[in-house]
Amino acid sequence: MRFLLVVGSTRTALIDGLSAAGSSPAATRHTPVADAEILTFGQPVLAPEVPVSPTGCPTPAVVTRAIKDVLDFDVLTVDAGLAERAAAPTYQLGEAPGADIREPEAVPNAANLFDGAREFAKALPDDRLVIGESIPGGTTTALGVLRALGEPFEVSSSLPENPIDLKRETVRAGLEASGISEGELDGQPGAAVRLMGDPVLGTVAGLIAGAKERWASVTLAGGTQMIAAAALARHSGVNGPIRLATTSYIAADETVDLSTAADSLNLKLEVTDPGFDRSDHPSMARYPAGEAKEGVGMGGALWWATTDGIRMGEIRAAVESRYDQLVGSHGP
Amino acid sequence: MRFLLVVGSTRTALIDGLSAAGSSPAATRHTPVADAEILTFGQPVLAPEVPVSPTGCPTPAVVTRAIKDVLDFDVLTVDAGLAERAAAPTYQLGEAPGADIREPEAVPNAANLFDGAREFAKALPDDRLVIGESIPGGTTTALGVLRALGEPFEVSSSLPENPIDLKRETVRAGLEASGISEGELDGQPGAAVRLMGDPVLGTVAGLIAGAKERWASVTLAGGTQMIAAAALARHSGVNGPIRLATTSYIAADETVDLSTAADSLNLKLEVTDPGFDRSDHPSMARYPAGEAKEGVGMGGALWWATTDGIRMGEIRAAVESRYDQLVGSHGP
Repeated sequence: MRFLLVVGSTRTALIDGLSAAGSSPAATRHTPVADAEILTFGQPVLAPEVPVSPTGCPTPAVVTRAIKDVLDFDVLTVDAGLAERAAAPTYQLGEAPGADIREPEAVPNAANLFDGAREFAKALPDDRLVIGESIPGGTTTALGVLRALGEPFEVSSSLPENPIDLKRETVRAGLEASGISEGELDGQPGAAVRLMGDPVLGTVAGLIAGAKERWASVTLAGGTQMIAAAALARHSGVNGPIRLATTSYIAADETVDLSTAADSLNLKLEVTDPGFDRSDHPSMARYPAGEAKEGVGMGGALWWATTDGIRMGEIRAAVESRYDQLVGSHGP
Repeated sequence: MRFLLVVGSTRTALIDGLSAAGSSPAATRHTPVADAEILTFGQPVLAPEVPVSPTGCPTPAVVTRAIKDVLDFDVLTVDAGLAERAAAPTYQLGEAPGADIREPEAVPNAANLFDGAREFAKALPDDRLVIGESIPGGTTTALGVLRALGEPFEVSSSLPENPIDLKRETVRAGLEASGISEGELDGQPGAAVRLMGDPVLGTVAGLIAGAKERWASVTLAGGTQMIAAAALARHSGVNGPIRLATTSYIAADETVDLSTAADSLNLKLEVTDPGFDRSDHPSMARYPAGEAKEGVGMGGALWWATTDGIRMGEIRAAVESRYDQLVGSHGP
């Protein structure tokens, strides 16, 4: 089993109030870089700091890295298009961040990303892949892709109060700028990513397609962004089982009907509760209130830990320890 | 401790009879890609096959990977300029292979490679770095750099009969094409790499410089190419301790006076004998006759295993097992 982390950027994240994956919209630029570095090295290296939400909740990369501290799984970072360079080694697929989806084209190289990711996943020797993501603004682009495809599902948020009206307004403006209506790209996943998506969505969809071509097991580690990636894969004709492993915080999000979406896309849903409500440690304290919720493959890493028989108490201790090391050396 | 594998290509390897890092000069193109993939995944992924010498000796990547199977160390591949893409994730420093050193300029971007590698190694969080390499033709470019710097040391070979006359003739032609004489670039390591080196040498020299700036421990894992990299670092003013960890097969090479070179450059020399003469397994059988000898950090990985108390019998069993898996699935 190998953990693929797909990282990238979209300028959609610069819209004020949309993303909690950074202390400010400008700071989201560093977030996927820092997340890849935290997963690889245990700390930021070229990124300036540990990403936090506007209210101070640290990135879920801390949780995923803590689980890696326990399980020692192999990580392979795929660069779908970062805004700046990471010290983490990457398999580079994309060269540039995606544009704001309110532009006519959001991901001009969507077809190349999909094809490159498909070939890559087809070549990899691993029987089982777990795929996580880090892209600030990613739930808005996910909503854009779902609407372009004509899928009715809603998306979650890393904020406790989902700014769903702002997301809908952004998607509406994006559809208009792209000259398409809702559902017009049913069965056209490449066009949906190109006009309304982000580089990570196109890459994850391609990875799913390539892995399923050789009958590898695929676990999507994440929430509603992974619902959109799975929808893209299904619209491109990918059949076969796909698992969606996410956190109890996504499952508890009232704006989202996760099990209906999973059923509709034929995804086997696995929800894991890390029990962060039992801790008041700053690394975990804000999750029960609905902050962060998921990201950087956290839900998939939790599922993996469960299948390996690791108790959640051990995970919480590892999160505490990893975070304390990080704060000792790097703030916030 | 982290293992950095620096990979790249030089068209110098296309000179007939110079390199055993591939079944033919043309096949050396795939070798560093395959080596990075074998170290990362345990097998070639995008590369077409397990590299072998013209007489069938498999790449030392098999040995280094087998030691990783035992020690489970972290690998970070640095791409100094590959001729084709690897599935292994890389930190990308260079975009292109080096030219034949008989061209006026061998590595036009030598200064960028050195500076980029220095900044990278300075930023890495690891207290201890082990640095290995894979670049076919690398002992000839190493000889070119040593002569340009005015260092008198000879270089080894992955062939049992070192084609040292051909290497000297190639270096003579290279110096002439570059319009310089032996020793003219004393104290000018950047120019020595640019005119007579390869992308890997410039990168390794920069990694040493960056690591030593922050007082990290550096172990160069290799033979005479690492002597050349250390010479470049010393000529760029790097002081402080550097370890050179290599195999008994390099130490036994009569064309090379390894301890004199190490003394002259103030390198702490560690020679490890993996005892392959006790095995007639195809993965090891040709080493005692002087084939391959070293590469892909093999000597450093052996040293690391020794410091961890691993017996060489266990390493040989791991090499056998890893090779049998490889041959079972991928030839040669």
